[in-house]
Amino acid sequence: MDLSSFLTSLATSCIIFLLLMLLFFWLSNKPGNNVVYYPNRILKGLEPYDAMYKTRYPFTWIQEAFSSTEKDVISISGVDSAVYFVFLATALGILVVSGLVLLPLLLPLALTDKGKSNQTTSKGTFTDLDKLSMGNIKEKSDRLWAFVFAVYWVSVVTYYLLWRAYGHVSELRAAALMSPEVKPEQFAILVRDIPAPPVDQTRKKQVDSYFRALYPDTFFRSMVVTDYGKVNVIWKELEGYKKKVAHAEAVYAEYKEKGKPEGTRPKNRPRCCGLIGAKVDTIEYYTEKIDELTTKLEAEQKVVLREKQQASAFVFFKSRLSAASAAQNLHARMVDTWTVVNAPEPRQVIWDNLTKQFYSRQIRQYIVHSIVFLTIAFYMIPIGLVSAFTTLENLKKLLPFIKPWVKKKALRTVLEAYLPQLALLVFLSLLPKLLLVLSKAEGIPSESHAARAASGKYFYFSVFNVFIGVTLGGTLFSTFKTIQKSPDDIIPLLASSLPGNATFFLTFVALKFFVGYGLELSRIIPLIIFHLKRKYLCKTEAELKEAWTPGDLNYGTRIPSDLLILTIVFCYCVIAPIIIPFGVVYFGVGWLVFRNQVLKVFVPSYESYGQMWPHIHTRIVAALILFQVTMFGYFGVNKFYYTPVLIPLPFLSLIFAYICSKKFYRAFHDTALEVAREDLKEEPNMEVVFKSFIPPSLATEKADDDQSEDALSPISRSVSSA
Amino acid sequence: MDLSSFLTSLATSCIIFLLLMLLFFWLSNKPGNNVVYYPNRILKGLEPYDAMYKTRYPFTWIQEAFSSTEKDVISISGVDSAVYFVFLATALGILVVSGLVLLPLLLPLALTDKGKSNQTTSKGTFTDLDKLSMGNIKEKSDRLWAFVFAVYWVSVVTYYLLWRAYGHVSELRAAALMSPEVKPEQFAILVRDIPAPPVDQTRKKQVDSYFRALYPDTFFRSMVVTDYGKVNVIWKELEGYKKKVAHAEAVYAEYKEKGKPEGTRPKNRPRCCGLIGAKVDTIEYYTEKIDELTTKLEAEQKVVLREKQQASAFVFFKSRLSAASAAQNLHARMVDTWTVVNAPEPRQVIWDNLTKQFYSRQIRQYIVHSIVFLTIAFYMIPIGLVSAFTTLENLKKLLPFIKPWVKKKALRTVLEAYLPQLALLVFLSLLPKLLLVLSKAEGIPSESHAARAASGKYFYFSVFNVFIGVTLGGTLFSTFKTIQKSPDDIIPLLASSLPGNATFFLTFVALKFFVGYGLELSRIIPLIIFHLKRKYLCKTEAELKEAWTPGDLNYGTRIPSDLLILTIVFCYCVIAPIIIPFGVVYFGVGWLVFRNQVLKVFVPSYESYGQMWPHIHTRIVAALILFQVTMFGYFGVNKFYYTPVLIPLPFLSLIFAYICSKKFYRAFHDTALEVAREDLKEEPNMEVVFKSFIPPSLATEKADDDQSEDALSPISRSVSSA
Repeated sequence: MDLSSFLTSLATSCIIFLLLMLLFFWLSNKPGNNVVYYPNRILKGLEPYDAMYKTRYPFTWIQEAFSSTEKDVISISGVDSAVYFVFLATALGILVVSGLVLLPLLLPLALTDKGKSNQTTSKGTFTDLDKLSMGNIKEKSDRLWAFVFAVYWVSVVTYYLLWRAYGHVSELRAAALMSPEVKPEQFAILVRDIPAPPVDQTRKKQVDSYFRALYPDTFFRSMVVTDYGKVNVIWKELEGYKKKVAHAEAVYAEYKEKGKPEGTRPKNRPRCCGLIGAKVDTIEYYTEKIDELTTKLEAEQKVVLREKQQASAFVFFKSRLSAASAAQNLHARMVDTWTVVNAPEPRQVIWDNLTKQFYSRQIRQYIVHSIVFLTIAFYMIPIGLVSAFTTLENLKKLLPFIKPWVKKKALRTVLEAYLPQLALLVFLSLLPKLLLVLSKAEGIPSESHAARAASGKYFYFSVFNVFIGVTLGGTLFSTFKTIQKSPDDIIPLLASSLPGNATFFLTFVALKFFVGYGLELSRIIPLIIFHLKRKYLCKTEAELKEAWTPGDLNYGTRIPSDLLILTIVFCYCVIAPIIIPFGVVYFGVGWLVFRNQVLKVFVPSYESYGQMWPHIHTRIVAALILFQVTMFGYFGVNKFYYTPVLIPLPFLSLIFAYICSKKFYRAFHDTALEVAREDLKEEPNMEVVFKSFIPPSLATEKADDDQSEDALSPISRSVSSA
Repeated sequence: MDLSSFLTSLATSCIIFLLLMLLFFWLSNKPGNNVVYYPNRILKGLEPYDAMYKTRYPFTWIQEAFSSTEKDVISISGVDSAVYFVFLATALGILVVSGLVLLPLLLPLALTDKGKSNQTTSKGTFTDLDKLSMGNIKEKSDRLWAFVFAVYWVSVVTYYLLWRAYGHVSELRAAALMSPEVKPEQFAILVRDIPAPPVDQTRKKQVDSYFRALYPDTFFRSMVVTDYGKVNVIWKELEGYKKKVAHAEAVYAEYKEKGKPEGTRPKNRPRCCGLIGAKVDTIEYYTEKIDELTTKLEAEQKVVLREKQQASAFVFFKSRLSAASAAQNLHARMVDTWTVVNAPEPRQVIWDNLTKQFYSRQIRQYIVHSIVFLTIAFYMIPIGLVSAFTTLENLKKLLPFIKPWVKKKALRTVLEAYLPQLALLVFLSLLPKLLLVLSKAEGIPSESHAARAASGKYFYFSVFNVFIGVTLGGTLFSTFKTIQKSPDDIIPLLASSLPGNATFFLTFVALKFFVGYGLELSRIIPLIIFHLKRKYLCKTEAELKEAWTPGDLNYGTRIPSDLLILTIVFCYCVIAPIIIPFGVVYFGVGWLVFRNQVLKVFVPSYESYGQMWPHIHTRIVAALILFQVTMFGYFGVNKFYYTPVLIPLPFLSLIFAYICSKKFYRAFHDTALEVAREDLKEEPNMEVVFKSFIPPSLATEKADDDQSEDALSPISRSVSSA
């Protein structure tokens, strides 16, 4: 790729972004699209935009993004979103401060030296950019000292900004946990691995008497987790029927309006997706079904609550302080029984995982980690196999009906060329979901925790495969024999193949932000889907709302890909400092676009009070260490005599990571008592707190009956005194 | 060494042991020696021996040891001693159960095979024992399967017995912590790293208001740690003078008795150890001094309590439950401030370390670990240098007065031969003390914890140097070039040099237990020292008591050396199973001898409720892993085709260690709430609890005056409500 074609591709991407931005301006100004462009504000009961921005210009959204404060973000979208912005701002800060020194220092040095003629920064004849990179410096040159200084500068800037960011996030988290609002999860703990109850006691009594004895003043009541899978199935069926009745009624009403005053009652065939059986009146049929199921549900609920109590429970306390303290205490002498953790928010509890036992969780974790490791290291093998088996010849045998298609030559060429890539693409797009499923299989009790675990796995996958994979790329196989001789050579190898790929990554970063952010901002796909659904499918208000309600930001995949960009920019920022402005634009535009999306579009589906941050922090440090090690190798390749001056850096990074985790980490795992101590706005209504944890399928509208054996019911005082 | 000389040395050791035992019988039956042989019982106010053992026979002590129960040990010597016996019993159990299978299985197999003629088990011509070892098995023989099975058998037996022992110790610890006795340390926590107080508050007020807010119902009061070094110096001087007065009075009384009714008042010269100055009347002089110092002490105490308050404190709670919970909670958002741990027993607090700050402790730990690592790895270098510099030629130059001595030829030869060994001996005997000093320098707050830390270091030193050092010994230097080529060869090298040293270790183990235990039991040295002191130095009752009061068992060095024996026996138990009986005798006799010593002699100077166990456990597992890895190498040396069947073993051990630490460890670090919940015999007298933590030099006999600014005083209610 030469300079002109690089610039062309850059310009094209840039124009696409501008076009998409204009499209966004045009579409978002149509009131009919408000639910697509401002759903979060609408759900919060706010106007789509503030009065002061009533007149919309193409850049108003940028103005709005800039004028919004962290407080706005927290109040509208929660601490997790604010933490995401701290991450973006920190990455931006690191790159800006590094760039301010590196660009004026290194570019002239590189430009004015007469470099090695045989080494190029790009695989083609991209000689113009080449002159701006470290590849243009002579071997053993004293000018390399400036590059050594640059490595130190980037490291120190990163330490400083990360340190400040960790402190800031820690404050955000504390402030959120100190908030005077009553949050049910702050009054509860999750107890797992409860040992078998004595023969004469139910699980419920066991839990109650255990905790009442330990916390006589502050224990409120407990909720034993039940195996309510069967009830859930019935409940979901019931909800489905209720929706169908509502839908049918809406259709009926529409008919009525259209002319026939008595209307045509909608009918359907009840079996096999409406394909067979006699037609019945939909409304009558489902109403009948609903009555039937409601009775069944109630009966089943009673059975579940009484007889399917599991070995875990939520325990509620009358104060935040006691709950925070209880979640940190060792309760039983055997550490694998009565294990406690902070209760997750009710909405993000993964109920199925609550009942998994201690060693089961440990073993699952190992199995999952092994699977993930194998996936990361060897995912090319199954994909290769799949694409080998899905050659056209094989497909013809397996699926004879595609034969006529294959005969066309043009189509055939395209298919043969793209089948392996297709397999790879399918795999890559399914990977985040797969990792999330795997993470949940570890036995993690909350959605946010599972997302964090999946996000970590995805980061290591990205870095290992995209970055190291592409960089080593062709180099690897040709030099395979060298590696076999001594595996220690991997770092110099990695380092020497870095410059050859600088332009590939430049293009990658540029494409990623211009096209990706353009699509994100303009929300074309959700818009089209919404309009299609509204026109052809939705009949009731609820269905319509479901059609436009957005998901959440999906940190689980977003953060790893941002971190990948940061890793790439880190690794190239000294070798080819020209990559820094691209990184700055990536994080700068990202900050703007996501500020817009977070404030107006995405609705967070859970809140973890910034527990994501320690993970982000660790991975930024990991990226920094990768950068430092690679630079050490690269200086070695340049035969720089003083390369060992870089040796302290990775150790410094490790010490930095260690000190940070010592100083800040535990506050992200437990709640500090001085934080939990803060007063509440009002006396918490413990009944409300308790009820918020009842899964919807088990919630009954009836008042509590005093069956003291039941998983949810309060224990009577006479029992407690036993 | 051939068989006859081995048997001779064995027999000699055995006879020495029997002689020492008889000596013990004879000496311990003299009532005048009771304070040397039964000091623990005497201090506890018991008769030297129970009525049922009134008639003493040479083996009565063995009878007593067998009839004593674990409860006796705990009541007389505490949980730590009981844990030591659990360790001895577990080691014994492992060796007995292993031996029952290994001896009848492996010895015949080895004896009936025609071994490699070129390999011997001993460095000499020790061919008879050689036939009983694995060295006598042909290479690639199928008989090696039996040895593989033996390795698995030993491992499984170890897992099983360790698992049971861990559970048992965990119960002992819980039972001790649940005891209805009031133990001051169970009502207190140690708070360190308190941030600077606000300008208008004293440290004392800050601590009180902080904890009163978090534990409004159960907080009792706090004791701010002060920098009382200066007071302590004065106090020690004062105590010294008091002793001198008592001594002088006793001497005076003796004179009086002897004849002159008015007596000769003892006199001394007060300066420079009584060498210069005019003679003064001792009693008058020191009584004056005491009055002087008492006033000074009181003034200084006030200054210290008011003005030298440090950033740490003991905080007292009204219940064990609150204290146990508080010690586990994260109090401040910044993890490096307000750090809490369980309070150690008052008698074992290392006051100087309480004021060391968080990062200071971390850095100290790293420095100490580095020093210890360097010591372990390279201690031969400074010793070599020392002995090189202390050759006789050099000594003659430095210390001219030894010249005439050196001229004698015989003496000269001896000196030249023994000087390096002497340097080594001095180093080895000082090492435990050095390690203890180093461990204390880490900033550890209690003596027992420091002893544990030192013990760990000593274990790694022993194993590395005695075991690996001796085994590799000569082999190492001759094959240094091989190692340089590939460090992976260290395991086969270690393995192939093992059999050559089997007899060395046989003799080592035999000598160690016969002579060592004989000396331990007969207590000849303490006996002689006591009688000398009684005769020439002691005048008062207090001085006499000081002369016979024994120290504690000194687990810090005892356990590592027992562990070293266990490591040696493990490593040889399959190669030369004949070592097993020696191990059995070592741990069996050790159990008997120490049962006697613990019940009658040693007085524990602190109690850590079995916190030593996890460390012992980890090191037994480490020894097991060393055994498994060495066996893997040794089978490889024997060219056994199926050697890889041993690969799972080290991993199994790691998993076992991991599961144990997950299940049991935290209960040894924190107190489980269900343990702390148990009721007390009586309502604790909190004033007594509080006072027990006041260091003796700060204790005043006066009642508390209500100066609320003082480090010890209770805060008045008006302050607390602020």
